[in-house]
Amino acid sequence: MNLNKIFNPKTIAVIGASSSPNKVGHDIFRNLLDSKKKVHPVNPKAKKILGMIVYKSVMDIKGKVDLAVIAVPAQTVPVVLEEVIRKKVPFTIIVSAGFSESGEIELEQKVIGLAKDKTTILGPNCLGIINPHKKLNVSFFNKMPKKGSIAFVSQSGALGVAMLDWAIKNNIGLSSFVSIGNAIDLEYSELLKHMDRDKNTKAICIYMESVRHGERFLETLKSVKKPIIVLKAGKTKTGEKAAFSHTAALATEDAIYEGIFRQGKAVRVNTLYQLFEIAQVHALDQQPKGKKALIITNAGGPGVIASDAFENAGLELVDLPKHIKKELNDILPKHWSNNNPIDIIGDALPIHYKKTLNKLKNATFFDFIMVLLTPQTMTNPTEVAKELVAFNKKTKYPVFACFMGGHQVSEARRLIKKGGILHFMEPEYAAQVISKMVIK
Amino acid sequence: MNLNKIFNPKTIAVIGASSSPNKVGHDIFRNLLDSKKKVHPVNPKAKKILGMIVYKSVMDIKGKVDLAVIAVPAQTVPVVLEEVIRKKVPFTIIVSAGFSESGEIELEQKVIGLAKDKTTILGPNCLGIINPHKKLNVSFFNKMPKKGSIAFVSQSGALGVAMLDWAIKNNIGLSSFVSIGNAIDLEYSELLKHMDRDKNTKAICIYMESVRHGERFLETLKSVKKPIIVLKAGKTKTGEKAAFSHTAALATEDAIYEGIFRQGKAVRVNTLYQLFEIAQVHALDQQPKGKKALIITNAGGPGVIASDAFENAGLELVDLPKHIKKELNDILPKHWSNNNPIDIIGDALPIHYKKTLNKLKNATFFDFIMVLLTPQTMTNPTEVAKELVAFNKKTKYPVFACFMGGHQVSEARRLIKKGGILHFMEPEYAAQVISKMVIK
Repeated sequence: MNLNKIFNPKTIAVIGASSSPNKVGHDIFRNLLDSKKKVHPVNPKAKKILGMIVYKSVMDIKGKVDLAVIAVPAQTVPVVLEEVIRKKVPFTIIVSAGFSESGEIELEQKVIGLAKDKTTILGPNCLGIINPHKKLNVSFFNKMPKKGSIAFVSQSGALGVAMLDWAIKNNIGLSSFVSIGNAIDLEYSELLKHMDRDKNTKAICIYMESVRHGERFLETLKSVKKPIIVLKAGKTKTGEKAAFSHTAALATEDAIYEGIFRQGKAVRVNTLYQLFEIAQVHALDQQPKGKKALIITNAGGPGVIASDAFENAGLELVDLPKHIKKELNDILPKHWSNNNPIDIIGDALPIHYKKTLNKLKNATFFDFIMVLLTPQTMTNPTEVAKELVAFNKKTKYPVFACFMGGHQVSEARRLIKKGGILHFMEPEYAAQVISKMVIK
Repeated sequence: MNLNKIFNPKTIAVIGASSSPNKVGHDIFRNLLDSKKKVHPVNPKAKKILGMIVYKSVMDIKGKVDLAVIAVPAQTVPVVLEEVIRKKVPFTIIVSAGFSESGEIELEQKVIGLAKDKTTILGPNCLGIINPHKKLNVSFFNKMPKKGSIAFVSQSGALGVAMLDWAIKNNIGLSSFVSIGNAIDLEYSELLKHMDRDKNTKAICIYMESVRHGERFLETLKSVKKPIIVLKAGKTKTGEKAAFSHTAALATEDAIYEGIFRQGKAVRVNTLYQLFEIAQVHALDQQPKGKKALIITNAGGPGVIASDAFENAGLELVDLPKHIKKELNDILPKHWSNNNPIDIIGDALPIHYKKTLNKLKNATFFDFIMVLLTPQTMTNPTEVAKELVAFNKKTKYPVFACFMGGHQVSEARRLIKKGGILHFMEPEYAAQVISKMVIK
């Protein structure tokens, strides 16, 4: 199914557009006006909304409509949907809540019956769609995330909002955001296939509570070439119970999902931030080819903590080849660790980091490098960060960073992230995320 | 052993004080001048340092000296230590590096032999001591943490610096900080006993790579009444190897440590931030009495994620008693979850949070409460935060929070932390930290 028109429609009708700022129908309409698309408000009672002439029905709009957005009370949805179908609008987003999630199963069935093969529906009970590359916001979330290469499909609108807000604060770019709500029509499979074709998308994140068509989903996972990272909630008995009272979809045994993800080669993560951290690694093309780690540190303690964390996560600290030790002897202080982690000692200057990194530029005995730093007396975290960013541009293997501390490393962290290097708050967390990427 | 004079000395001599801002002996001296104690610089070559008259030897100082700080090159330490002993200074902090950690085992043995019973030594190869309650900074870390009730003992100076910097940025108060370095004399046991007596300390954090006197340490753990939280590095084979090349102390089998911590009822954590999070819970007197959790949320998805995380961590989501359900029916929207997590639905206003919390004020069917929030259209995170802080003052059970998002929840998070409530970035992390506190 070609979904281009839902992600990049030429003309949009907002049914239930409102001039009252407290209403969802107002927020969506206002967000859409910023998109510079042809947007038509539909509302039988209003005359003008934000300066635009209002249509009484979608059928009154002249010319084709690519996308209808429905934001009217649930009970009114079938009536307006009939008009959408008569107008031959190919795609419809129903944001209205009050369907199966509230026990209104018959009403939902009615909508499904009406729409069948006549218009493709996203929702109901969803937040909508955002496509930052087209500056298109068909949702009631009021900000536009940065353009980027991570696509995010969320079964929970509320969670979607939180993650959008978080992505904006952390300067993470998205290729698209889709809230699927009750997913009576468009579900994961169609969306994933679209994102796999979408040239802006490098990695796909999913927040999932349940899937309706398991077999189709597995087939899709197998066919999609881009990396898929999944946070599946409702793992435990307690979680299943909570998921049931949230979406009325009974989550089946977690083991079945586990099997699907494994067969489909999707990466399953445990936390929301892991979801985005791993997606970012893919977005930055920073996947390690294997589990061999090299650690550089100016502090023994963090080196030990990182070693523990890496081994616990199934990563491997490779031994240093003799010739590397020899070369490092020439440039490092006498008491450097002579081992991996390469502890270049507490009084390490930016030049020590630089020289050490440069000796490793073309090395092949490891798969990725992790640079640790604590802000000691002689340390200049900001200058080390600059060296790291410069080095990252020259080397082919992934470089990760963990600069520990507070104010003294703030600017360094900012430069590292801006320079396209993934920064982790602690070694343990880094180990968990990195291991998810390399160990299948 | 009474350690009051090392944490609160009246007169201090800095041997190796320097007027050169790049030297440790300068930083320590400058930090001490801010303490408004009697501080004397000692240096055979200088005449005045920062306006103070310099003594050629510690023996030239008139009157008693409570604490000598030695910051001269390692080879010179025995000579100045002899003078310290002749001057009968009861406590000596040797910050100088270049002893067993650099292979100079004989030099370290010489220092041990000299000091024996004559002066109590902290270090060598350490960062020093900080006592925020006395504004005393006998270290070369250049900031003063906030006064508070967490004591922190670190075997790694570099890690100590990172955590001090982090604590300052996150507004976490400390009762004392001690870097033990090579710990040739003062080790964990004496320090823990002191902190157990210290009226400013409510919880004790330890970063440990190895302990010299295991049996004595276990006895101490058993005798100390205040909560002790330990991050023990060198857990795995890889970590042990890294720890060895860092401090030359061979970490024994991790199982032995595990046994000691269990018998001594110390809480063992996996990450640095967990160390401080748990200490904060104790500092705020917010330990849950048991594992029964109650979750309040305005979003189903996060409720499911939290349920999973809590069950995985061994916490229990209690069922709601009938009378509570009934009372909540009167105040919550029709479609609230009728269950734990109490999902008060996406359009929950601050008043819904307030009313729900107030119904639970005197309830006894759970041990702690976790409030989740995502910033949806109708949500006012800042006002909800205010309600939460007000409620926290009225209730006896611990209240935790997890407000998910970015900019839209920033101010709310600030108010929550300022209001004495522990805030977690994600439910999974909260579950790990809380479970460490209640499950023995």
